[in-house]
Amino acid sequence: MDIIAVLRADLGAGVVHGPDEADFPRHSRDFLNAAPDGVALIGVAYPRTTEQVSHILRACNAAGVAVQPQGGLTGLAGGGVPQAPCLVLSLERMRAILEIDADAGTMTVEAGVVLETVQKAADAAGLFFPLDLGGRGSAQIGGNAATNAGGNRVLRYGMMRDLVLGVEAVLADGTVLTSLNKMIKNNAGYDLKQLFIGSEGTLGIITRLVLRLFPKPQSVSTALLALDDYPAVLDLLRRARAGFGGTLSAFEVMWPDFYTLGTSALGRQPPVAEGHGIYVLIETMGTDPAADQVRFEEVLGAALEDGVAQDAVIAQSDAQTQALWAIRDCPGEFPKVFWPQISFDVSLPTGEIGLRVPELRARLERAFPGVRTVFFGHVADSNLHLSVHPVEDPMPVHAIDEVVYSAIGEWRGSISAEHGIGTIKRAFLHHSRTAQEIALMRLLKAALDPNGILNPGKVI
Amino acid sequence: MDIIAVLRADLGAGVVHGPDEADFPRHSRDFLNAAPDGVALIGVAYPRTTEQVSHILRACNAAGVAVQPQGGLTGLAGGGVPQAPCLVLSLERMRAILEIDADAGTMTVEAGVVLETVQKAADAAGLFFPLDLGGRGSAQIGGNAATNAGGNRVLRYGMMRDLVLGVEAVLADGTVLTSLNKMIKNNAGYDLKQLFIGSEGTLGIITRLVLRLFPKPQSVSTALLALDDYPAVLDLLRRARAGFGGTLSAFEVMWPDFYTLGTSALGRQPPVAEGHGIYVLIETMGTDPAADQVRFEEVLGAALEDGVAQDAVIAQSDAQTQALWAIRDCPGEFPKVFWPQISFDVSLPTGEIGLRVPELRARLERAFPGVRTVFFGHVADSNLHLSVHPVEDPMPVHAIDEVVYSAIGEWRGSISAEHGIGTIKRAFLHHSRTAQEIALMRLLKAALDPNGILNPGKVI
Repeated sequence: MDIIAVLRADLGAGVVHGPDEADFPRHSRDFLNAAPDGVALIGVAYPRTTEQVSHILRACNAAGVAVQPQGGLTGLAGGGVPQAPCLVLSLERMRAILEIDADAGTMTVEAGVVLETVQKAADAAGLFFPLDLGGRGSAQIGGNAATNAGGNRVLRYGMMRDLVLGVEAVLADGTVLTSLNKMIKNNAGYDLKQLFIGSEGTLGIITRLVLRLFPKPQSVSTALLALDDYPAVLDLLRRARAGFGGTLSAFEVMWPDFYTLGTSALGRQPPVAEGHGIYVLIETMGTDPAADQVRFEEVLGAALEDGVAQDAVIAQSDAQTQALWAIRDCPGEFPKVFWPQISFDVSLPTGEIGLRVPELRARLERAFPGVRTVFFGHVADSNLHLSVHPVEDPMPVHAIDEVVYSAIGEWRGSISAEHGIGTIKRAFLHHSRTAQEIALMRLLKAALDPNGILNPGKVI
Repeated sequence: MDIIAVLRADLGAGVVHGPDEADFPRHSRDFLNAAPDGVALIGVAYPRTTEQVSHILRACNAAGVAVQPQGGLTGLAGGGVPQAPCLVLSLERMRAILEIDADAGTMTVEAGVVLETVQKAADAAGLFFPLDLGGRGSAQIGGNAATNAGGNRVLRYGMMRDLVLGVEAVLADGTVLTSLNKMIKNNAGYDLKQLFIGSEGTLGIITRLVLRLFPKPQSVSTALLALDDYPAVLDLLRRARAGFGGTLSAFEVMWPDFYTLGTSALGRQPPVAEGHGIYVLIETMGTDPAADQVRFEEVLGAALEDGVAQDAVIAQSDAQTQALWAIRDCPGEFPKVFWPQISFDVSLPTGEIGLRVPELRARLERAFPGVRTVFFGHVADSNLHLSVHPVEDPMPVHAIDEVVYSAIGEWRGSISAEHGIGTIKRAFLHHSRTAQEIALMRLLKAALDPNGILNPGKVI
C-alpha cells in the first residue's frame, strides 16, 4: 500500500489528500517562485494536531518519502516550494490561539495561525505583537519563525528570533520536542529552539510557539528628511540613536532614483523636493504621546539647524504618516513604473553601505550596459534592498545574481538579510558563509534528519 | 611523548604549563565550587591566538585528552571546574579589543577580555555595553557568552545571547568556525552562533565575538515602593510596562524577610517602613533626562493615588539610588546576617510567582522544620532567587535541591534562570527539560564532539 493510502487509513481522508483531490497548483508556488515543471507531488496533508504531524513524519521517514512543509506561502526565496516528488505538509489547519498570558507577556499559538490574526488577538488583549510585513494577511506564524522573518520594526523589537520564547517542533523521525518556555530567562541546557528558527523547515517542523507580547505603543512620530550624502545619514543616525534610544522604530534610507519612483513617477507630489542627495524616513514608537512628539521635533530640529539635514517634513496626522510610508512602500507598485525587475535583500555593515551603493551600481552598469538600479533599505539594521531593471529579454537573472552576491561576499555582507536562502540563493550561500560553516550546517542536517526527508533541496 | 611535551614543543613553554609549573589551585575552582579531591590536571594552556586554540584542540582530540575551557572563573554552577583529569584551556591571554565600529554599533573582541574592560571601552567610545553583573571585574566576555549571562539589565537589553552578533569558535577537532557577523539582519543559512552561546563550552570554544553596543542612557530614574501583595505587584508591572515601554530597565521584587535582611538586619534605616506585604525596586533608563523623570513620577504617583502602592521613595541623587540598590544587592552581605545559606536561581512564569513563593516556603518548612527562606528576584524577567538557611549541620544540600527543583519542575519553571547548569544542576536537568529535549542535546553533543573532549561532565 502506498504511503498516501496508509496515512489516509490512519488519519482519515480529510487530513490527507491524494493526487486525485489535492490542490497541487496552490501548493506548488510561493509569492515569487514556482515548482519546476513536472514535479510530481504525491499528496497534501493538513494535520490538525502535533500528534498527526508526528505520525506523518514517522511514516514518511520510515518510507524515505520527502516532506515539503508549508505555511502561508508568502515567502520570496522558494523555501516552501517543492523541488522534487514529495508529500506537502501544510500547517494551515493548526490555527488555534491557545493562551494569552498578560502577566508573562506571552501568547501560545499553533503554527498555522495567520500573522494578522496574532496581531489582532494581541491588540484585543491590550498588548502588541510587533512583527509586521507585507504578507501579514496570509503568512503563518510558524513560517515566520521557520524563516526568522524581519520586516518593518526590527530596529525596535528585533527579528522573529527575538520574539519567540518557546517552540514545539517535530523532528524528522516523528519525535515531538516540546519546549514551550514562557520565561525570558531560562538557561537550563542548550537553547534548542534556535535550531528551528531560521532553518526553513529543514531540521524540524514547528507545530506550536510561545510568542513575546509588548505594551502597545502610545505614540508614533514620523518624518521624512532630505540630506546631502551618506555621511550625513550616519550623522543623523547617531543623533537618532542617542536622542530616541529604544523608541527608534524605523530608519529607512532611500537613494534619489528610488525616491523619484515613489513620488513623481507614480504621480505623487514629493513631500520634500526631489534633487537632494539622499532621503531618510524616521519613526519612533513611545509610551508618552505629548513628550515623545516634543522630543522628536527637538532632535530633528537640531539636525536641521546644524545642517545635517537640508529639509524635513514631520507628519501631523495619520494620513500624512501613511503618505510618507507609501513612498517607502512603493516597491509594491513597481509593476507600474519599474518592470520587469529583480530584487535583492542583502546586508552590509551600516557604516559601509554608502560607499558600496555606487560601487555596486558601477559593477552592474559595467556588466549590463543600460541596466537601471534603485537602492533603499532599513540601513540602521544593516539591511539594503536593491532592485535591478535589466534591458535584456529574457532577463539574465543568474548573471545579475552572480554580480551582486559576489560583491556582497567580497565586502563580507550577507546575501540574505531577511528573506532566507530557500532554493533561489542556495547556489550563492558560499559567498556569505565559509566552507567550515557550511560543513557544520550539513553536519547538523545529517544529525537531525539522517534520511534527508525534511524540505530537501533547501538552504544547503 | 605525552601531550604536554608535544604541545610545549609545538607552541612554546610560555603557552603550555606542565604539572611542575601550572597553578592548579587557581584553575580548580569557580566562585562557589571546587574540583573534587584528587582530580589530576595534566597542564594549563594559555593560547594567544585562535590558531593556537585550534592546534591544542586538534591534538587533544586525536589523543582523547579532555579539555576544560575557562574564562574568569566567576561562575556559580561549576561549569568551569575540572571534574576529571584534563588539560585546562584558559582564554585569559586572548584579551585584545580588535575593533569598535560606532556606525554598526559593534565591538569585536577576543574571548578573554574582562567584562568591565568591554564596558569601559564602549563608554570611552561614547557608547554603552549593557551586560552587567557582580563578577564584572574578572568575568571574561567569552565566558559570559558561553554561559548566556544575564544580570541586572536583562529587562531592557536582553540576555548575553541578545548582545552577541557574531562569534568565532573552535570545534573539538580544531576546525575554526569564523562567523564574525556585524549585521543585525542576517538570514544566510543556520544561525550557528546559537550553538555556542549558553552551551557552557561543551560544543566548542569561543575565541572571538562581535558584541552589540547601544547609545548611552542619558537618564536613570529609580524608586522603591511598598505594596500589599503580589496581585498589586502585577498591577504595578502592567503600569510600568505601559507607561515606560522600552525604557523600563529593572523591576526587582523583594519579599518582607529579604527586605528586613537588606535594611534593619544590616543596621540600615529602611527607606520605606518595614511591615508591608512586598517591596519593588523600579528603574528606567532613557534618553531625555527632564521628560523621563517627569514621566517616572507621573506613573508612580498614579499608582500611589490609585492605591496600588502604599508607599514610595523616588531617588533624588546618585547616593539615594545607590542606597536603594544596596538593599537589593544585600546577598553579597549575607555572610554577616544569613549564613550558611544555599542560593537558588530559578524561573517561573511571572504571573504565578506570587502563588508559588508561599507554596515553596511551605514545602521547605515541612521537609526541614526550622529552615529559614528569603525570596527576591527580577520577576518581570520571570527570574526568582531564593536563599535557604538550613538548621542542620552539615547542610542537607542535595535534599534541599531536590525539594526546590522538583517543585519548579512540577510548576513548569526552569531550574536555571541565568546561572547555567554546570555540574551542580546536572542531576536535576530532567525537572526542566523533557527526555526528548535531553536526547536532542546529547545528539548535538555527539555530532559536534564525538570523542567527548570538551568540558566533560557538564550540562548533560
